[in-house]
Amino acid sequence: MNSATQYRTEKDPMGRILVPKTAYYGPQTQRAVENFQISGLRLPRSFIKAQGIIKASAATANMNLGMLERDIGQAIVQASEEVIEGKWDNHFVVDVYQAGAGTSQNMNANEVIANRASEILTGSLESYKVHANDHVNMAQSTNDTFPAAIHIAALENMEHRLLPAISNLQKELERKSEAFMPILKSGRTHLHDAVPIRLGQEFAGYAQTIESVYHQIEATLDPFYEIGLGGNAIGTIINTHPDYPQTVIAEIANRTNFPFRQPASMFSYMQNRNAPIRSILALKELAVHLIKITSDLRLLASGPRTGITEISLPNAQPGSTIMPGKVNPAILEMTHMVCCQIIGYEEAIATAGMASQLEINVMSPVIAHTLLESIEILSNAIPTLTTKCVSGIEANEVICKDWMESSLSVVTGLSPLFGYDLASDIGGAADDKDITIEQELEERGLLTEDVRNLIDPRGMV
Amino acid sequence: MNSATQYRTEKDPMGRILVPKTAYYGPQTQRAVENFQISGLRLPRSFIKAQGIIKASAATANMNLGMLERDIGQAIVQASEEVIEGKWDNHFVVDVYQAGAGTSQNMNANEVIANRASEILTGSLESYKVHANDHVNMAQSTNDTFPAAIHIAALENMEHRLLPAISNLQKELERKSEAFMPILKSGRTHLHDAVPIRLGQEFAGYAQTIESVYHQIEATLDPFYEIGLGGNAIGTIINTHPDYPQTVIAEIANRTNFPFRQPASMFSYMQNRNAPIRSILALKELAVHLIKITSDLRLLASGPRTGITEISLPNAQPGSTIMPGKVNPAILEMTHMVCCQIIGYEEAIATAGMASQLEINVMSPVIAHTLLESIEILSNAIPTLTTKCVSGIEANEVICKDWMESSLSVVTGLSPLFGYDLASDIGGAADDKDITIEQELEERGLLTEDVRNLIDPRGMV
Amino acid sequence: MNSATQYRTEKDPMGRILVPKTAYYGPQTQRAVENFQISGLRLPRSFIKAQGIIKASAATANMNLGMLERDIGQAIVQASEEVIEGKWDNHFVVDVYQAGAGTSQNMNANEVIANRASEILTGSLESYKVHANDHVNMAQSTNDTFPAAIHIAALENMEHRLLPAISNLQKELERKSEAFMPILKSGRTHLHDAVPIRLGQEFAGYAQTIESVYHQIEATLDPFYEIGLGGNAIGTIINTHPDYPQTVIAEIANRTNFPFRQPASMFSYMQNRNAPIRSILALKELAVHLIKITSDLRLLASGPRTGITEISLPNAQPGSTIMPGKVNPAILEMTHMVCCQIIGYEEAIATAGMASQLEINVMSPVIAHTLLESIEILSNAIPTLTTKCVSGIEANEVICKDWMESSLSVVTGLSPLFGYDLASDIGGAADDKDITIEQELEERGLLTEDVRNLIDPRGMV
Amino acid sequence: MNSATQYRTEKDPMGRILVPKTAYYGPQTQRAVENFQISGLRLPRSFIKAQGIIKASAATANMNLGMLERDIGQAIVQASEEVIEGKWDNHFVVDVYQAGAGTSQNMNANEVIANRASEILTGSLESYKVHANDHVNMAQSTNDTFPAAIHIAALENMEHRLLPAISNLQKELERKSEAFMPILKSGRTHLHDAVPIRLGQEFAGYAQTIESVYHQIEATLDPFYEIGLGGNAIGTIINTHPDYPQTVIAEIANRTNFPFRQPASMFSYMQNRNAPIRSILALKELAVHLIKITSDLRLLASGPRTGITEISLPNAQPGSTIMPGKVNPAILEMTHMVCCQIIGYEEAIATAGMASQLEINVMSPVIAHTLLESIEILSNAIPTLTTKCVSGIEANEVICKDWMESSLSVVTGLSPLFGYDLASDIGGAADDKDITIEQELEERGLLTEDVRNLIDPRGMV
Repeated sequence: MNSATQYRTEKDPMGRILVPKTAYYGPQTQRAVENFQISGLRLPRSFIKAQGIIKASAATANMNLGMLERDIGQAIVQASEEVIEGKWDNHFVVDVYQAGAGTSQNMNANEVIANRASEILTGSLESYKVHANDHVNMAQSTNDTFPAAIHIAALENMEHRLLPAISNLQKELERKSEAFMPILKSGRTHLHDAVPIRLGQEFAGYAQTIESVYHQIEATLDPFYEIGLGGNAIGTIINTHPDYPQTVIAEIANRTNFPFRQPASMFSYMQNRNAPIRSILALKELAVHLIKITSDLRLLASGPRTGITEISLPNAQPGSTIMPGKVNPAILEMTHMVCCQIIGYEEAIATAGMASQLEINVMSPVIAHTLLESIEILSNAIPTLTTKCVSGIEANEVICKDWMESSLSVVTGLSPLFGYDLASDIGGAADDKDITIEQELEERGLLTEDVRNLIDPRGMV
Repeated sequence: MNSATQYRTEKDPMGRILVPKTAYYGPQTQRAVENFQISGLRLPRSFIKAQGIIKASAATANMNLGMLERDIGQAIVQASEEVIEGKWDNHFVVDVYQAGAGTSQNMNANEVIANRASEILTGSLESYKVHANDHVNMAQSTNDTFPAAIHIAALENMEHRLLPAISNLQKELERKSEAFMPILKSGRTHLHDAVPIRLGQEFAGYAQTIESVYHQIEATLDPFYEIGLGGNAIGTIINTHPDYPQTVIAEIANRTNFPFRQPASMFSYMQNRNAPIRSILALKELAVHLIKITSDLRLLASGPRTGITEISLPNAQPGSTIMPGKVNPAILEMTHMVCCQIIGYEEAIATAGMASQLEINVMSPVIAHTLLESIEILSNAIPTLTTKCVSGIEANEVICKDWMESSLSVVTGLSPLFGYDLASDIGGAADDKDITIEQELEERGLLTEDVRNLIDPRGMV
Repeated sequence: MNSATQYRTEKDPMGRILVPKTAYYGPQTQRAVENFQISGLRLPRSFIKAQGIIKASAATANMNLGMLERDIGQAIVQASEEVIEGKWDNHFVVDVYQAGAGTSQNMNANEVIANRASEILTGSLESYKVHANDHVNMAQSTNDTFPAAIHIAALENMEHRLLPAISNLQKELERKSEAFMPILKSGRTHLHDAVPIRLGQEFAGYAQTIESVYHQIEATLDPFYEIGLGGNAIGTIINTHPDYPQTVIAEIANRTNFPFRQPASMFSYMQNRNAPIRSILALKELAVHLIKITSDLRLLASGPRTGITEISLPNAQPGSTIMPGKVNPAILEMTHMVCCQIIGYEEAIATAGMASQLEINVMSPVIAHTLLESIEILSNAIPTLTTKCVSGIEANEVICKDWMESSLSVVTGLSPLFGYDLASDIGGAADDKDITIEQELEERGLLTEDVRNLIDPRGMV
Repeated sequence: MNSATQYRTEKDPMGRILVPKTAYYGPQTQRAVENFQISGLRLPRSFIKAQGIIKASAATANMNLGMLERDIGQAIVQASEEVIEGKWDNHFVVDVYQAGAGTSQNMNANEVIANRASEILTGSLESYKVHANDHVNMAQSTNDTFPAAIHIAALENMEHRLLPAISNLQKELERKSEAFMPILKSGRTHLHDAVPIRLGQEFAGYAQTIESVYHQIEATLDPFYEIGLGGNAIGTIINTHPDYPQTVIAEIANRTNFPFRQPASMFSYMQNRNAPIRSILALKELAVHLIKITSDLRLLASGPRTGITEISLPNAQPGSTIMPGKVNPAILEMTHMVCCQIIGYEEAIATAGMASQLEINVMSPVIAHTLLESIEILSNAIPTLTTKCVSGIEANEVICKDWMESSLSVVTGLSPLFGYDLASDIGGAADDKDITIEQELEERGLLTEDVRNLIDPRGMV
């Protein structure tokens, strides 16, 4: 402890403990701070905001159902709204690797709000007029509020940040697809010469893949709308007014503009973190495809002299500390790195998910942290990718044409006429002699006008 | 080579090669057999069947569009139908770890069908009247047919085997849930005493989780309906009749009764294995939840004397080679093992998926094998789980009651009346003295009729 | 049941059951066959052989310690040796997804050997003179023999197949490195032009990486030498002669020529599958690096007209069913696919490994299958890679030189003289004007003899 | 930009850019800050310190080899030492998801040190007397220094924090093993009654597992000792004095007291992140085993009334916000969560590792971040586990004895005498009648003194 810090003595079921005098949190948070010095990371702003929303909504519901005195309830609502606004973020101090299920995180919110509400009512932080458990946590448990906070925070970031970011990327890829549609180039399969394709067609593929993943991610939002508040510790709805679940959920829906509803089964909601598991799996799907696309773009932009160089990327920054003039595909590489992390994060959540036991999944804090961090870094990386890279991609039309014309794969157009065997022979011969298909056909006296048309790339795309 | 085997000499673009005289496959398959002696595993019956469906449908479409002579086309259809029926499975001999994109697998089908069709037409296997590439593979490429075969095979097994299996498991869990609803027991969170719950409520949670995953898996079928036949090597639809894509797809839909359609983008279809990636992610979600459920059931059935023993599992077989009389949760353990493998298989497919490059994903054979094997083992394991384990689970009502009555967690019911702090104190004291909450309340003179009601488990569920 | 099959009635602790009359296995195997119709896969030859070695060695040890009658013991040894030789493989019929810990697999061995030994002694398969548990399984349990069988089988395949295969690959890469050392080419970082390098230096990197992984894999063999026979069900060494552990291990060491020893802790050996977990992690390291190397080789061999084409791969087989003359890097792709599967298999084993509970890991069968399959496919793929691809790689010296001379990266050599800023300016100008560094220097009047030397690629490698 | 901030104009190869007036970093760092607003995370203190060590050592080596003027070199050394001490941490501002290979991170160090060294020499931050590339980065590239910084930072944390933490855990488990050796209890396999075991034997297993992993992690340190400084951009050792590699490495060894050496192959060192990949695989092995051990401890401590309760954990903090008096295994749960994250982090690094291309792995920043974060959270979690949980575990001897005496598994002791079949029958009968083995033996008139000894648990452990 810092010797200059002033402390007050607090008490919880485990006994007395010193808490910094200026802290709005209380003894259980303090124990968690002392127990969990692990990563220095905290659950993010969006999670704390969601906790505030839940606490305010629960107090409102309890007041309206006659369970909570008005003055205390209103002070809780006011304190919770300050939490929603971010006023007390510095007092949310529990490490993301903490007590199972997030009990410490829930108590951190309960204690900050109780103490602030007490202060609102009495002018004194140490009046304890509002009780962290009996009042702020009324009708709640960690096992119903913690997952609800994940759902609210994830939804907010998914709906308002990640999905629009993906949609913009998709649109930009489509714009590029249209712009690049006139440009013919060699296709490549197995990294080997394939029949001609339009550069715009390649981008059309990227755009469609992203569109498909967009809809998949969107479809995984639905389970987040289920919040099992009132289910309480294990889903059996104890210590609450019978109308509490619907009342509190309506209040949260009202505060967030999301159509929250009661879960199909309180018990399934308590037992597992269904929604985060499904959500991160969809984000992994996105990551797999972004790795493909960003790898392709780096391959097409390889060069400037020793690579394929069919496209040019906008210069983001100097590329080498030793090789002057080098410019690297930094934005694409950053995106690929983010995707590697997402793939790891999915594994972390799945491993945590399978550790559910009976009425609870005690791994919920690491699930919350990992899911929200995944959404965060994707929500930032994708707009960067879109605006600082994709939108500035330019086609190198001449290079595209040169590669295409050198390719042997136009021989494919002769198969219907000559058959696969003769066409193969022509292709092989051209390869051996290092000449073009056209030249080989000429040598064989086969280069009629019809044949010339069959190997014209413009007819193949 | 076996010295007793008779060979014939065949030729492909790479030159001459010996092929066993009785083999219906040809030189390219033979090269693949010699190149790929890796696992001894073959792509499964359902995949070969799907290849047959595609080859028959392509021939029909090409005939109808006037591209393929009737007699050759009809022989191909007949030979393909024999492949569909499984008559030539022994002639599909390429290892699952083979040429990228599945070229060898496609040629295996082309060659078997060409040779069998030649035999049908001429009576001789070595007549070569029907050409593997020019006729059987007409208007096709590996990159459009191999993924299509995955889609057809996966759909068939998903729709007819896996989804019904999951549905039956869900129904059995629901039946158990209803049967066990009268049985009160102690809830457990963090493996510690929690408030009472009904055994049926726990099973209701399992049933709902499985139902939710069922719908998620069902939703991932949609991308399989997209088959990009006619897209050909890279999506540019070359060397085909313009009406070929819709014609061949209609023919396949007709043969399979699945509503296949052209993909939203031929290019996305060629570039990635979107559908298998999405599908296996959903199967991983299933695996994560099955691990949770089967772990729970083993925990609840632990004993018979030294565990929780709230439920009994049907005896499947003797459990120990050394400890007489031991019976183990063998079916649950087998299911858990299958799920471990599924989780690994997802990783394999994702790793393969991110290796797409430009116009193709050359990892498609390992994706095909791994996805179909995943569906296979789940389709077998889940009915075993349902019929040999879940349906025979019995509740040990007395043990459930005994545990519940000994639990300290009923003290939770006192919080609204006494507040969290006093209730904690009562709970702690009962724990220290190793007595029940009721006894502690009596000692404190607090055990009124109202209080007795508040701690009655029957009021808590 | 097949109506034509003849059955005999057998009995186990669960009651009567019909077993095919010609089967050497007995009732517990039969139950497992009926219970586990999952994958159709069996544990491999090497595992069955290892089971035979253990059973023969245990019988010998028990005879020598006076625990087992000589005639019965000798019959068991003879029967076990037949199992070792593979004579009864068809009677090992339990699916790899089976009873937890491998009880069914152990009973399959016990029953086959007991019945065969009975037959040896009495001439009748149904004499039951030798008892599967009391005699064949004497002093053993599934939990000490099943892991031991994994260790023996893994070691045999690692030592005699996989490690030599890796070593040969390493040597071939080194040979190529030496052969390619005179060839200068452009280095590439970020797929962008970098300073010159020798083709042989790139291969030297590959060779060294493989050598490093070789030693890492070799180092993971050590835990396999620990076999906890005699530890019995849970490590407490019950129902055995005190000298049994050392006696049986010496016997196994003698039969296998591996220096097996007792584990540092019987309890750790029983609780976890330490050795397989460590082993597969090292195989994953190999897979990650093989993916890098095989991807590089495909990149360098891309073309023949539209890629980098600095090297040429030997032609393994025709590459396309539609594009005549195409040759793909099929062996490299196959290897990459095998590596994807290894990466998945590691995940499967880790997921199974973390499911250990108290005195046992019941996931052992899936661990055994997955580890041995991993070793198998790598042991086959790597020699294929070495002999059918790496050894035939040829350098395209002229192309290497052309790329190098066009590269702007030689400007790096000017940094010490001109400073990073001026060098960058020169490089950027050359890029903009699409000329070489030499030309740009000439234009600026900076091309002295010293400067010419500084940008000479031969001085940079 | 904050309107109150004062800026200066800087210039890099890409043009002019505004940099905050008080920033010690320069234009390339500024570009990276603007390009990469992704996670808000920075590479950790230990990484920045390692960068300082490298820069100081390079300057010293270059001075000693006559490549760098003394006054500039000494200013660089002084500035670098301030970086080592942490004085300029606030000026290391690049996101962990940044330019491939870590170019921005390297330039951040180069710029801060150049500007600070200029200030040291001239009194002015904006004098630019010392050049970020020409002086601070002399003889270096990102591709040789960034991996070196990973190696130095990882080693420091591994040697001084993680390995001692694991060793202490191992010793504490051993102490517990010794303390608990007198306590007999029921073994459990498949979560079912097994033969007796000592509680100390279970802990001996844990201790040995941890010891084994300790040595495995220790063995993975070796590759970190290889640092390829002087290899420069791609391993070809350009733009450096021939004695530079050995000189700079000796200097770093001197500053760190680690026996650094030149890599076996510069090219392998450049191509891949071998050491981090191997290291995280070993950390995954640790995570898998810690998940097993912490899960076991939670199972054994389950209760206090409705679980196994053979051990008691020290109370770390109150366990429930709703269930008064509940105490959860919070420290074990936190550890399990950390292990889930480690398992994910391994996947992230492997995915990044396989993305190496030719002369570089551009994913190095995410590898650095993920590896160092893994070491960090394990280094904090494990001592917490040791001191706040394991060291305070107490055995509940009476409960252990009660469970053991009720177990049917002592019947195993009768197998050698009665044979497996009769012993099974006795066990089954006792189970059916819900009596002990002893009672069943008495009923059958088999309970002689010898038989009583055979089923005495004390003889079985």
